[in-house]
Amino acid sequence: MRPLQKIQYCIRQFSTLRSVPKPSAWKTYAAVGAVSGSLFIYYQQRLKVNAASSNSSRIKSAWMSDPITSYEILEENPDEMRYKFEKMIMRVQGELCRLLEKEDNDKKFLVERWARKEGGGGITCIMQDGTVFEKAGVNISVVHGNLPPAAVAQMRSRGKDLTGKDLPFFATGISCVVHPKNPHVPTIHFNYRYFEVTDEDGSVQWWFGGGTDLTPYYLDKEDVSHFHKTLKTACDKHNKSYYPRFKKWCDDYFFVKHRGESRGVGCIFYDDLDNDDQDKIFKFATECADAVIPSYIPIVQKNKNKGYSYAERMWQLLRRGRYVEFNLVYDRGTKFGLMTPGARIESILMSLPLTARWEYCHEPESGSREEELLKVLKEPREWV
Amino acid sequence: MRPLQKIQYCIRQFSTLRSVPKPSAWKTYAAVGAVSGSLFIYYQQRLKVNAASSNSSRIKSAWMSDPITSYEILEENPDEMRYKFEKMIMRVQGELCRLLEKEDNDKKFLVERWARKEGGGGITCIMQDGTVFEKAGVNISVVHGNLPPAAVAQMRSRGKDLTGKDLPFFATGISCVVHPKNPHVPTIHFNYRYFEVTDEDGSVQWWFGGGTDLTPYYLDKEDVSHFHKTLKTACDKHNKSYYPRFKKWCDDYFFVKHRGESRGVGCIFYDDLDNDDQDKIFKFATECADAVIPSYIPIVQKNKNKGYSYAERMWQLLRRGRYVEFNLVYDRGTKFGLMTPGARIESILMSLPLTARWEYCHEPESGSREEELLKVLKEPREWV
Repeated sequence: MRPLQKIQYCIRQFSTLRSVPKPSAWKTYAAVGAVSGSLFIYYQQRLKVNAASSNSSRIKSAWMSDPITSYEILEENPDEMRYKFEKMIMRVQGELCRLLEKEDNDKKFLVERWARKEGGGGITCIMQDGTVFEKAGVNISVVHGNLPPAAVAQMRSRGKDLTGKDLPFFATGISCVVHPKNPHVPTIHFNYRYFEVTDEDGSVQWWFGGGTDLTPYYLDKEDVSHFHKTLKTACDKHNKSYYPRFKKWCDDYFFVKHRGESRGVGCIFYDDLDNDDQDKIFKFATECADAVIPSYIPIVQKNKNKGYSYAERMWQLLRRGRYVEFNLVYDRGTKFGLMTPGARIESILMSLPLTARWEYCHEPESGSREEELLKVLKEPREWV
Repeated sequence: MRPLQKIQYCIRQFSTLRSVPKPSAWKTYAAVGAVSGSLFIYYQQRLKVNAASSNSSRIKSAWMSDPITSYEILEENPDEMRYKFEKMIMRVQGELCRLLEKEDNDKKFLVERWARKEGGGGITCIMQDGTVFEKAGVNISVVHGNLPPAAVAQMRSRGKDLTGKDLPFFATGISCVVHPKNPHVPTIHFNYRYFEVTDEDGSVQWWFGGGTDLTPYYLDKEDVSHFHKTLKTACDKHNKSYYPRFKKWCDDYFFVKHRGESRGVGCIFYDDLDNDDQDKIFKFATECADAVIPSYIPIVQKNKNKGYSYAERMWQLLRRGRYVEFNLVYDRGTKFGLMTPGARIESILMSLPLTARWEYCHEPESGSREEELLKVLKEPREWV
């Protein structure tokens, strides 16, 4: 495999980003459902900065990079949802990256900060070929501009009442996939996002979306139960109906139709959340994002040093092939991103594992642990 | 990896297939463009037979299995295009499989013969984890029934003048992908097919489609030139306009939009060929299918024993990741097959490599052989 230097080869220049316009200029922006944070990242130029080279003590101590919106704007508008959300995901990105680095013997994330010509940008943090993590990406994006017609059509098909074309939008979110090396450590994926669209009549529609789900290679019921319980606790604090509703939504969304099986053991998934006080939903999203560390890190710590066989590793790679199938064939965000001219492909496809495998007509042995997992993937269960 | 026994685990029963109706009953069938031969393989039951277990001396000496259509029907109707085509692809499958086996120190193909509830079936020949070939599939299918509405819509969008729903169709074709182990041996893909559709008014539309293309990991201009020349010679015998037209069609079809690069160095691709005498087009398709062995086997023989480094192998796996991206995101046949309920997924996805890899922001070193390949993929060239 290629050393870190090869990857850093694509870090070409250091630059600060243009700050977004003043909040007053955004007042006409609307708000509705949600698409992946990576959807609208297109025509951007890549401006990258290694966190280590920044001279801000705040960045060094907490965030992975300078934020996309300038410090001044963030500080002057503490009640604006878009900035509250950006600060929240910057904090979550920083906390998670530091913890993952610690779990991987202090291997460091590569930090790439990029700008989008039409407005905004993102911070992509990648760890590749670590001792514990084979590939981990923790990305945030804060983008604005006009919605591509395909995005408007997609939103309408989801029931959004939007009129007109070229609607101004604002989208911000955090998206993460961690593929560990040891087949006894599951893959985690999560994504939390906030969206605003301004309709033709000037009204603003906003909505929240997100979810966290687990993809184990071997079933450890205790781990899966812990994972679901942690997210259920976060949900229950806000609305007792959330966990059962969003658990089912997750099972449905991550179903790989052509295989007749789920990608993993799910957890929660929601979209278009707008039927409550904005601050309340924000607190719920924050609660979920904050649940990632306590839901996942103990599972990593418990399993990362377990021994495994060559056959177990091959099974993991085979299951990763299924992961690739889901992401390239079904995942809304990935599909939409790939079809969007000028999208930042490397940020979208960071979700793919470092390695994957396809074996013709593979079937696990009867009574094996591999078969045990497959049964669960074919018939989703309750874990709490 | 799993041994052959594991794969053979899915060979469960031996059975003969129902023969297709008498030719007279097919007279009302129509003919137009083409979709992949694997498209309509759905709701089928899998009936498999190992070629070695057959008691027909003809099979042992030439074909990989009993044909899908019974021997009697094939013999009684030597002038019917559908049977002529089936016999041609049975012969090509047999010849190619035997030759690939020979190149791989007599490792044997696994032969699976399957039936489709609605009519017809296929013969899937797979070699996995050989010494020379990491994964090779040579599949034929001979299917009939009624077109799914999505297929009719797809054909209309390609300009087919079809009226009505539930149109009877007949499709037969050979489809092959060979992924060698050595990064100095390119991957080959080819597919030749014949299609008939009966319109509502009883008129039959028929058409031919197909193509052969090469995906090298390292550029050997001599090899690529030999490959293109062989297919150009086959084309030129029939129509001097074919090679330039179909070469461009191939370059366009295998372009991976989101990467801004081609899957490989192409060669020829055509579809909806119906503007000439049926027998003339059949001879052209036969000529192309027969050109596979002289175009590819010498390249295998020349390169299969070359030494290669770990870094070269990693580059091959990375390029295979791109191959997966094309097949899952763009390839018409694969996409349509995956969306078709009950499709035989293992036959459709046999085109995916055994192993693939995704590295974040990988860029080859300046002046390297890897970069040389990328330049060619970004700007298709003339090779003859």
